[in-house]
Amino acid sequence: MTANDSLARLAAVIESRKPGRGGDPERSYVARLLHRGPDAFLKKVGEEATEVVMAAKDLERGGDPARLVGEVADLWFHSMIALAHYGLRPADVIAELERREGTSGIEEKALRKAQARDSEGGET
Amino acid sequence: MTANDSLARLAAVIESRKPGRGGDPERSYVARLLHRGPDAFLKKVGEEATEVVMAAKDLERGGDPARLVGEVADLWFHSMIALAHYGLRPADVIAELERREGTSGIEEKALRKAQARDSEGGET
Amino acid sequence: MTANDSLARLAAVIESRKPGRGGDPERSYVARLLHRGPDAFLKKVGEEATEVVMAAKDLERGGDPARLVGEVADLWFHSMIALAHYGLRPADVIAELERREGTSGIEEKALRKAQARDSEGGET
Amino acid sequence: MTANDSLARLAAVIESRKPGRGGDPERSYVARLLHRGPDAFLKKVGEEATEVVMAAKDLERGGDPARLVGEVADLWFHSMIALAHYGLRPADVIAELERREGTSGIEEKALRKAQARDSEGGET
Repeated sequence: MTANDSLARLAAVIESRKPGRGGDPERSYVARLLHRGPDAFLKKVGEEATEVVMAAKDLERGGDPARLVGEVADLWFHSMIALAHYGLRPADVIAELERREGTSGIEEKALRKAQARDSEGGET
Repeated sequence: MTANDSLARLAAVIESRKPGRGGDPERSYVARLLHRGPDAFLKKVGEEATEVVMAAKDLERGGDPARLVGEVADLWFHSMIALAHYGLRPADVIAELERREGTSGIEEKALRKAQARDSEGGET
Repeated sequence: MTANDSLARLAAVIESRKPGRGGDPERSYVARLLHRGPDAFLKKVGEEATEVVMAAKDLERGGDPARLVGEVADLWFHSMIALAHYGLRPADVIAELERREGTSGIEEKALRKAQARDSEGGET
Repeated sequence: MTANDSLARLAAVIESRKPGRGGDPERSYVARLLHRGPDAFLKKVGEEATEVVMAAKDLERGGDPARLVGEVADLWFHSMIALAHYGLRPADVIAELERREGTSGIEEKALRKAQARDSEGGET
């Protein structure tokens, strides 16, 4: 079973939870988020990103790696709910990542910008 | 080419950018983030999550779907840099997502909690 | 000099940086953010919140308290730029905080909701 | 009543909710967050920052200004809970903001860095 199959299958489950496709907000967490609308799942994206940051900081001082994995899973999962709401799929994200990988110079451009930031001074 | 191959291959590229494996902070954006340490890439995770939220809100009023895809790609990409730093891989995240999907009751538990929140009052 | 005077004076400085009031994006950081529009300063709000979280986590293990103070200052400062863009002032925020403090039952309502979350299970 | 008085008074209320000073997690929302520890209130900082971003985006298309004020109030309030936990006060933040205002060149330094970012290319 490839990750593609895994993400595609998970995306199909999310799709089936859409209010218009029989998803029941009283019985499914995903259906409930989709029913409540964008602010509900976008808030979760911000919240889970914060949890990833905290789990990573804890990992630096002996925390549990599984917690970081779990928080990244939460972050990706809620990202996929957002994608589904707007008619998009994880395959679109994978394709974008592949496209970038194949585009020479992407890293170099990002790097030049980052170096410029460094040379100009401290954080603001 | 499956997504598993894609994510695994991207993870391998990130792995090769580690300072201890020949990654050059002067030539690679990923090597530079890894060289600067956790705060550098964790800050990007928080930043990209905010960009996902903004792209989604813009999409509601006619924005470009490709921008949301690009921001989610940025978010997942920087999550993968964090995973790599701590010796973890996207396959670990996929496995966790599969594990949850196979665990009956996960959605029901999240749902009961969310319903309790609703019944108790407004946002705080 | 009270904090009210401080925040009001800082808000006045931000106000004077608005493009329509003579703010020069080539000479002022605030003018530049206001000139670039909402996504520029809203992205900073998300970024600075992440920095607050990281500074706080570092403080738990011996980090510098001054860094947390600096990051909260950054967060409040960029919040004030957002308020200014929409014609609002820090005094509006202070008034809202005072209003809540004077509204009996606010803490109790938030508490009941939070307790309900606890009783319903783990994090999701 | 100045903002200084307001923020200082609110900080005093938060201080009185500390577990060691009689704060009761069963009766006070603030006491409960402080009792649960850093991750509880830091997660709220990330969450409220996301809510500020969403309220601002909605305001651009006719949303309610009062909602943005309320979300900024939530963000500042939870920042103050974090400050209190680490023995810091809003007055420290105000002092830092005043210090910066009095430091000539602060805006110019931030500006040069931001300009360098622009000249080097798009977002990454």
